[in-house]
Amino acid sequence: MTSSHSVPEAVSQRLLSFVAARREAALVDSPEASLVIDAAASSLTGGKRLRARFCETGWRAVSPAIGAASIIDAAASLEIFQAAALVHDDIIDNSDTRRGRPAAHRALEGMHIARGWTGDAAAFGRSAAILLGDLLVAWSDDLFEDALGSHPAPRLAREEYARMRRDVTLGQFLDIAQESAWITQPDDEHADRALEVASLKSARYSVLQPLVIGASIGGASDEQLDALRAFGLPIGLAFQLRDDVLGVFGDTAITGKPSGDDLREGKRTLLIAYARERMDSHSRAALDTDLGRADLDDADVARLQAAIIATGALDRVEQRITAFTADADEALASGVLAADAVADLRTLAHAATARTS
Amino acid sequence: MTSSHSVPEAVSQRLLSFVAARREAALVDSPEASLVIDAAASSLTGGKRLRARFCETGWRAVSPAIGAASIIDAAASLEIFQAAALVHDDIIDNSDTRRGRPAAHRALEGMHIARGWTGDAAAFGRSAAILLGDLLVAWSDDLFEDALGSHPAPRLAREEYARMRRDVTLGQFLDIAQESAWITQPDDEHADRALEVASLKSARYSVLQPLVIGASIGGASDEQLDALRAFGLPIGLAFQLRDDVLGVFGDTAITGKPSGDDLREGKRTLLIAYARERMDSHSRAALDTDLGRADLDDADVARLQAAIIATGALDRVEQRITAFTADADEALASGVLAADAVADLRTLAHAATARTS
Repeated sequence: MTSSHSVPEAVSQRLLSFVAARREAALVDSPEASLVIDAAASSLTGGKRLRARFCETGWRAVSPAIGAASIIDAAASLEIFQAAALVHDDIIDNSDTRRGRPAAHRALEGMHIARGWTGDAAAFGRSAAILLGDLLVAWSDDLFEDALGSHPAPRLAREEYARMRRDVTLGQFLDIAQESAWITQPDDEHADRALEVASLKSARYSVLQPLVIGASIGGASDEQLDALRAFGLPIGLAFQLRDDVLGVFGDTAITGKPSGDDLREGKRTLLIAYARERMDSHSRAALDTDLGRADLDDADVARLQAAIIATGALDRVEQRITAFTADADEALASGVLAADAVADLRTLAHAATARTS
Repeated sequence: MTSSHSVPEAVSQRLLSFVAARREAALVDSPEASLVIDAAASSLTGGKRLRARFCETGWRAVSPAIGAASIIDAAASLEIFQAAALVHDDIIDNSDTRRGRPAAHRALEGMHIARGWTGDAAAFGRSAAILLGDLLVAWSDDLFEDALGSHPAPRLAREEYARMRRDVTLGQFLDIAQESAWITQPDDEHADRALEVASLKSARYSVLQPLVIGASIGGASDEQLDALRAFGLPIGLAFQLRDDVLGVFGDTAITGKPSGDDLREGKRTLLIAYARERMDSHSRAALDTDLGRADLDDADVARLQAAIIATGALDRVEQRITAFTADADEALASGVLAADAVADLRTLAHAATARTS
């Protein structure tokens, strides 16, 4: 693997062969068993493969003497874990679409109807998707263990992978708790809480930990790991702040999700915390009433977008994205990382923070 | 560990210290972070610790020269995994109670209300419990890896653990699919389908795989593993058939679950398959209409119980439990397993198949 451009393709190929082997090895050969494997395969297609690319580039950044045979397996296992997280996330957020197609629980609901099954198709879709997510987590572990199977020193990578799973799950829990608990917290704490969630569920999970896992597989030195962390955390925060901006201001045609989805879900992001800080109590109460309303229409969303912009919150978030990105760039100047990988990390950083979808 | 009687206590103690360490290591110290750890701790209390006991007894059955330091860790990790499965299962089955207390999603709903949070408490409870289950799975992996940390040959145990996770998840998926898909299948295939599900989600998961994991940690020979499998599969099937009987005929005061819960959930068990085989089309249609009705009252349940008994289905299931138990007992006569452990396996077999809760 000499260029990060080919990593998404290599990962997608590996995922196809992995699913084919899983289908072959399934103890039960029935239309129902095929259904869950089909749903799993479908959930593994598409996406930007960002975590896989950070993993492979983290590996390459340490001029690795080991791990070449397994880095794509490790990178692919992170994408399986991400697919699992998205399947559960879409149930939690009641999202109908993902990557422009039906979310897994809605696709499973559709299969229930198409096959003429009996009972509540929507309830089946949600229940089946809980188990689909569980199966994908198990698969992700399996492929990660395959990656480490012949590695001379797998301990660090395995520990970071385990930490990643704990962090992202706690982060997601705090994220949904915050949607309900904000009302019991002082207004001036909301921004810190939002950044705490962003750090766990995005900065560490999506960037820092894939980098460290890849680098650990490559046999990184402590200095190299420190440099990757110093780059990964701010880029990951900027990545989440970009996501927050897109969740309120994103273009449906580009993101594949309805515009203003974060408003309907009542997400308590830094953008919202900043907006509330600069609102009078009347406007703040009005925003609080609207946030989380599933029936917000396009006009409502446009009105809320304007109200948020008027507080200067969007500008402040953009400034933080810029500052985090600058911090990350500085960390790349340490000189302990391989030059070609550093160039690719800059490209990835740009893709993660300046994206429109 | 010299007697299986002390295993549940040792496992419970290990789980307490494990949760305390997790609480200590949490990156975030907030009331919301405490909430998920409290919920996790609560989900790990109680239960029969059956899987832990099979794991420890499987280890002891091979006269182990290795693994003494880690077998309670491994046994405890299986109980964490089981807690995770139950948390997700109770969302899927819409069960309000577990082990006589509120199910996790209902307990989390209650915490939302008690803390004066805003929004839909029931939706929060279900979403939070999806993530709680995910966190418990991660914890289970962590403790299992701890158990294998210093083991000289961890490969077999790790592979069996991974297989266990895939099998039980597929089994649970087929279980809920069957609740909907039976209508599209020939009536004479229902019994085989029910046994297939029972094999994956119970026989293998609850008995065979804990035994094999324990024995693998102990350094079992192929003959010893074969003997444990020949015992574990039929005992596990008998265990699930007992569960099916209790799910329809169980006493609420003893099981901690409402009587007839499987009828309200529409579970397509071997008991139901046998009952349908011997019903005329009119009775069968009436049963199909009632199965899965959440509003069945005590009188409805009593009527359905009588209808099932009248077909001879209960007797047939009891006969199969007896036959499976006899098969298992025979497998213990191979002479390759340690005598004191064989005695404990007989006790465990009795506890699993002749229980009333």
